[in-house]
Amino acid sequence: MINFEEAYRKVMQHTLDLGVEDVGLLKSTGRALAEDIMADRDFPPFDRATKDGIAINYSAIKKGVNSFAIEAVLSAGMPQTMLGDTANCMEIMTGAVIPENADTVIMYEQVTIENGVATLSKKPTKGQDVHKKGSDVVTSSVLLKKGKRIGAAEIGVLASVGKSKVQVKRLPKVCVVSTGDELVDVDQVPLAHQIRKSNTLSLFAALQKKGIMAELLHLNDDRKVIKESLSNILKDYDVLLLSGGVSKGKFDFIPEVMEMLGVQKVFHRVAQRPGKPFWFGKQEEMNTVVFSFPGNPVSTFANYHIYFLSWLQKCLGLPQEEKEVLLEESIQIKPPLTRFIQVKTEVKKGATWAKTIRENGSGDLTSLAYSDGFIRLQAREAEYEKGELVPFVATRN
Amino acid sequence: MINFEEAYRKVMQHTLDLGVEDVGLLKSTGRALAEDIMADRDFPPFDRATKDGIAINYSAIKKGVNSFAIEAVLSAGMPQTMLGDTANCMEIMTGAVIPENADTVIMYEQVTIENGVATLSKKPTKGQDVHKKGSDVVTSSVLLKKGKRIGAAEIGVLASVGKSKVQVKRLPKVCVVSTGDELVDVDQVPLAHQIRKSNTLSLFAALQKKGIMAELLHLNDDRKVIKESLSNILKDYDVLLLSGGVSKGKFDFIPEVMEMLGVQKVFHRVAQRPGKPFWFGKQEEMNTVVFSFPGNPVSTFANYHIYFLSWLQKCLGLPQEEKEVLLEESIQIKPPLTRFIQVKTEVKKGATWAKTIRENGSGDLTSLAYSDGFIRLQAREAEYEKGELVPFVATRN
Repeated sequence: MINFEEAYRKVMQHTLDLGVEDVGLLKSTGRALAEDIMADRDFPPFDRATKDGIAINYSAIKKGVNSFAIEAVLSAGMPQTMLGDTANCMEIMTGAVIPENADTVIMYEQVTIENGVATLSKKPTKGQDVHKKGSDVVTSSVLLKKGKRIGAAEIGVLASVGKSKVQVKRLPKVCVVSTGDELVDVDQVPLAHQIRKSNTLSLFAALQKKGIMAELLHLNDDRKVIKESLSNILKDYDVLLLSGGVSKGKFDFIPEVMEMLGVQKVFHRVAQRPGKPFWFGKQEEMNTVVFSFPGNPVSTFANYHIYFLSWLQKCLGLPQEEKEVLLEESIQIKPPLTRFIQVKTEVKKGATWAKTIRENGSGDLTSLAYSDGFIRLQAREAEYEKGELVPFVATRN
Repeated sequence: MINFEEAYRKVMQHTLDLGVEDVGLLKSTGRALAEDIMADRDFPPFDRATKDGIAINYSAIKKGVNSFAIEAVLSAGMPQTMLGDTANCMEIMTGAVIPENADTVIMYEQVTIENGVATLSKKPTKGQDVHKKGSDVVTSSVLLKKGKRIGAAEIGVLASVGKSKVQVKRLPKVCVVSTGDELVDVDQVPLAHQIRKSNTLSLFAALQKKGIMAELLHLNDDRKVIKESLSNILKDYDVLLLSGGVSKGKFDFIPEVMEMLGVQKVFHRVAQRPGKPFWFGKQEEMNTVVFSFPGNPVSTFANYHIYFLSWLQKCLGLPQEEKEVLLEESIQIKPPLTRFIQVKTEVKKGATWAKTIRENGSGDLTSLAYSDGFIRLQAREAEYEKGELVPFVATRN
């Protein structure tokens, strides 16, 4: 048995290089950007009006001109024109190109227009309401760096530079495997001694939030069936997430079968609760990583968020999201196990506080629906005090 | 022009009753639960072993028995059996049904087995490592209440009670409409006076994160085309999100066309920056709500998160997520406009701090990729001080 820090470090040492792929822009939301994105031209690409009103040449103001004959009306989408006489003006709409010979925009609210002549009610400042060419971004400057998760804002930037295809990190192919003869499908009515599958569906949903469409597979507690099935899926997937079959029971065949299939055990059992019988290994030849979680719902859910999500984040080249919260109550954690305790969080005055929730052991599936994550408490002699800052593993995002 | 509070209140007064629909369990992630979920039986449904080891009748311990002949091996998924002699034991695996006549489990770590006899190395306590029938949940108790967003944990609970179909709130059908002759498609090379569409793609991605697959439509600045197109989409969609065409420009036909189509203006223009020319209305007959945002990228992005997401949350019966952050610096906001200022947030000692980012006005699309949201600052004479708590509109979740 190893301790939590060591287990975490070992998991993080076994990340996969997933490579990259091109996806359509509107399919790239949530993905990890794998290329630097450069401006293909200045932005704005031209001197651009930011108000509806009139465009003038400021030199006229200096000469004392206050009324301007209107030469034309310019709207967004029209090619650039030229102000013929710098004592005149052109009406101009937001987004339109400032005409040659003009440099300043005065919004309609400060202009009276009568008989084709615009008269100012307020003296402008030179260059006002003109969004200058290249003032946001100049051609070839890097707008987005690789290693960023693509959100709605990034989609806008990618669109503006014409990236209809975006290079992103490939997501791992994941197979989620449940084991256990007691499990029946969700749409079945279980007999007295049976229960419905839930862990693997929960994992499926969690993976879905990361954009991963996992394959679901169930294996009964039969050594031969398990061996044959795992042999195939090790070839076809980057990651296997298993739930169950790793405890000390007589039908917990997973560790044994894994080693038969050339999956090298990195560790089995971690000094933590819940989630102690966690088995982690890698099939080097097939480049497949195996997270084999204990069958209890809280154990599987905890270890997925503690280990797998950090591992995934690192594989994708995304920064780790380490969070901390303030304890709402004092807690005593006796050695030797590191504890992951379910909490509900509440933000008060900008600070996040965590309150433990009633939980009936690692079989208590429903408790997960009432918590926002786990606080991580190392075993220590001194009590954790109310108001103390502790690490937090979020399960709601 | 109305102020922010009034605009927000009016938007929230125009929510839609979207009704409900049944979706497959694995498609329900992220959706708003529209039914109470009840336990269809006790959970656990039977007295269940939580460790691998042996099951005994505790009365034997009281009689001084320390070695137990093993009658059978019980695994998860086997129907309940009976311990024939209370002086004997059965081996039992995690998840298996405790046999009749047994009440206590002792894990393998505290047992030595030799010649079919298990000898204890530690005295057990009565009932240990038995997860009692109904101790988590009793039949018919409510496990999840309607109005909850379904996450991975809820999927597990729904699966455990056999909900292969789940009743959720219907999502609105949304059409996202860009206007402006200057706009070209992402895969086109714009001419000098043109720019690529970006706002509506950004909105598409933001909606996608809420599970809404929007329709994208572009309209040139032509009154007739706009009228005909909007007339059709008002019939087919619950919500129209428009970007552009609501300023004071001569080609800003949206407000006028909306009223021609029977969309009642609720308000136009809000005393805020960015996002002032926001037009909001409803076609009562067709039960369609129209959010018409200004064309500038920051304005559209801000108003979507400030108004539309709150509106959506309320339509779905989900709680509003009101957030606050601490100011990293002092800021002066002169009346009369409410300001939404882009910030980068950082969590320090459990508290979220906000630092304003360099932004070049509401046309600066790239700034959105560097911010985590907007702080909302009401205009006031007194300066906002460093460390002050202010409302925050997140744009990253």
